[in-house]
Amino acid sequence: SKTYKITLLPGDGIGPEVIAESVKVLDAVSEKAGFALEYTQQNAGGAAIDAHNDPMPDSVVETCKASDAVLLGAVGGPKWDALTGAMRPESGLLKIRKELGAFANLRPVTVPASLAENSPLRPETVAGLDLFTVRELTGGIYFGQPVGTEGEGDDKKAWNTMVYSVGEIKRVARVAFEWARKRRNKVTSVDKANVLEVSRLWRDTVIELHQAEYSDVELDHLYIDNAAMQMVVNPRQFDVILTGNIFGDILSDASATLGGSLGLLPSASVGGPVGIFEPVHGSAPDIAGQGKANPIAMILSAAMMLDTLGEEAAANAIRAGVEKVLNDGYRSGDLWREGNTLASTTELGDLVKEAA
Amino acid sequence: SKTYKITLLPGDGIGPEVIAESVKVLDAVSEKAGFALEYTQQNAGGAAIDAHNDPMPDSVVETCKASDAVLLGAVGGPKWDALTGAMRPESGLLKIRKELGAFANLRPVTVPASLAENSPLRPETVAGLDLFTVRELTGGIYFGQPVGTEGEGDDKKAWNTMVYSVGEIKRVARVAFEWARKRRNKVTSVDKANVLEVSRLWRDTVIELHQAEYSDVELDHLYIDNAAMQMVVNPRQFDVILTGNIFGDILSDASATLGGSLGLLPSASVGGPVGIFEPVHGSAPDIAGQGKANPIAMILSAAMMLDTLGEEAAANAIRAGVEKVLNDGYRSGDLWREGNTLASTTELGDLVKEAA
Ligand SMILES: CC(C)[C@H](C(=O)O)[C@@H](O)C(=O)O
Ligand SMILES: CC(C)[C@H](C(=O)O)[C@@H](O)C(=O)O
Repeated sequence: SKTYKITLLPGDGIGPEVIAESVKVLDAVSEKAGFALEYTQQNAGGAAIDAHNDPMPDSVVETCKASDAVLLGAVGGPKWDALTGAMRPESGLLKIRKELGAFANLRPVTVPASLAENSPLRPETVAGLDLFTVRELTGGIYFGQPVGTEGEGDDKKAWNTMVYSVGEIKRVARVAFEWARKRRNKVTSVDKANVLEVSRLWRDTVIELHQAEYSDVELDHLYIDNAAMQMVVNPRQFDVILTGNIFGDILSDASATLGGSLGLLPSASVGGPVGIFEPVHGSAPDIAGQGKANPIAMILSAAMMLDTLGEEAAANAIRAGVEKVLNDGYRSGDLWREGNTLASTTELGDLVKEAA
Repeated sequence: SKTYKITLLPGDGIGPEVIAESVKVLDAVSEKAGFALEYTQQNAGGAAIDAHNDPMPDSVVETCKASDAVLLGAVGGPKWDALTGAMRPESGLLKIRKELGAFANLRPVTVPASLAENSPLRPETVAGLDLFTVRELTGGIYFGQPVGTEGEGDDKKAWNTMVYSVGEIKRVARVAFEWARKRRNKVTSVDKANVLEVSRLWRDTVIELHQAEYSDVELDHLYIDNAAMQMVVNPRQFDVILTGNIFGDILSDASATLGGSLGLLPSASVGGPVGIFEPVHGSAPDIAGQGKANPIAMILSAAMMLDTLGEEAAANAIRAGVEKVLNDGYRSGDLWREGNTLASTTELGDLVKEAA
């Protein structure tokens, strides 16, 4: 029977708590489905700064590279907020993405009708929402060269470069078009082609690829400012959103608000040999260690990992389990409303494990 | 008695219709207040492309420079959508901003309780909202050098540069701090300092200026992705938002959705010798020429112009007039609800003129 090597990077804050619940659920579904998961746990983010003075030591990167997938909890917290540059927990995140070649960040957002009451938007605007952002993750202004600071006084200046090549755009656009074919067959590419040269190349490349290989998929284009408006006014118009690194960072976070809690939202960073699977939420230091964290985003990230490993049946079992637990009315504090049953982190993990 | 020279750039689509109403109202309040406005009308955007093959001819720029303020309707439309680069209507916009040194784009968004029902958000989340974005407008990635495209095939790449100097950051930050002092005394500076060098300089500079000259103002900092979330989840936490060109483009457009229509939202682009005053909405070609356009955003932009010219009494009269007309229940189609009186573009202009 098949064995997958999984690197666990629990990280900081609530990271370890939600990682533990995802492992619990993974062990249950893998046993049923007849495959095995072998875990190696490593420090990342603040925990790695404390232990090794480096938010993502090379040894951790090597462990990740030697595994089939990486499960990441969350990194950062007030303890490390005063650090700068390469010593910041976030630098570790950027490094592992780049090192693993994880160029496509996938962020599905769904709002089942039963949860629409939690939305900051009018429930009727978001009920049934099902959108999927494909964000380019290892290029653009996050990694573009040159970057620097020079000069003195008022003339001191600093700069970053937003750069994309046709090859980088094509490979992430393919991911978006392929996902669209499995979903509602529509891609909305988001750029700022009315102002930026790099966005013009982005748009031209997406159009060419579409014509050459994906003309069966519906394609449209929005400027990022308009996309940010549409995300609030009419988010259900979207199926797959395709965009660059910084625009995707902003837009996918805007989309993440629509369900009323980050606690249900998974993500996958894929494209290289080893994918990274992590919840959209952060390390939430204010509730760490209290059993209050919602483990579902992490558990659903683990399901995305199983999809990527080719274990779709087990992945679907997890998603069905989550759906049942939510339908049964169990909620952590972030989503609890009158009539629900309040459940702790471990209770939710146990419930999903049983239902999966 | 004082005479101000105003350049009118009606532009495209509904631009000419809303400009006409703002002139109607301006003439009424200036007469009452005892100053005069002298108008010169010029083509801009698509209209200028048609007439002069240039979205912002140098002769138009010269007229603007020789005046005290510029009122701009809106530019662009499907007719000019196939054009590229410097021939696009938007290029004209960028050119006039840069030529006039209008480095601070001011975008107030208010949602009076009486209009909260129009919001895509829950009315109780936005009722009473009053935020004010100060967006840097003549720097950052919109204008940064180098910019270019080179290479062939998959290696072809294109790039833009996001660059700010301490001087550029300070001058726009001052605008934000000064506005905060006139408002609720709080500035939220938005950047991506956990990833971008240019944002680190932004943040450091804002902090230094704050300590040196504005320590009486409350200051906090948000990353742009978090700011985009907060704009949906809890927008009333904001008083003055200070941010760069592209982040401000995105965030101010997100904030512009909160009232349920762009039709009430003015903007001012100031800092140089001559300011540009224009509605946040676009040229709306679909409703152009039908008397359906909401002129209030343009009329309130004209009020911001009077503020800037030092004619606050007349500016306040316009705002009071708009408030009365809305309180009396008159609405254009974008905001009409059961119980309101539907009013045309010219009817709304007449009503505000009378109430001002
Ligand atoms: C923490 C930060 C560097 C990171 C990013 O900007 O990519 C985060 O916001 C994310 O989206 O995963
Ligand atoms: C039309 C476009 C170039 C412009 C911008 O991005 O600045 C617009 O979106 C705005 O905000 O005024």
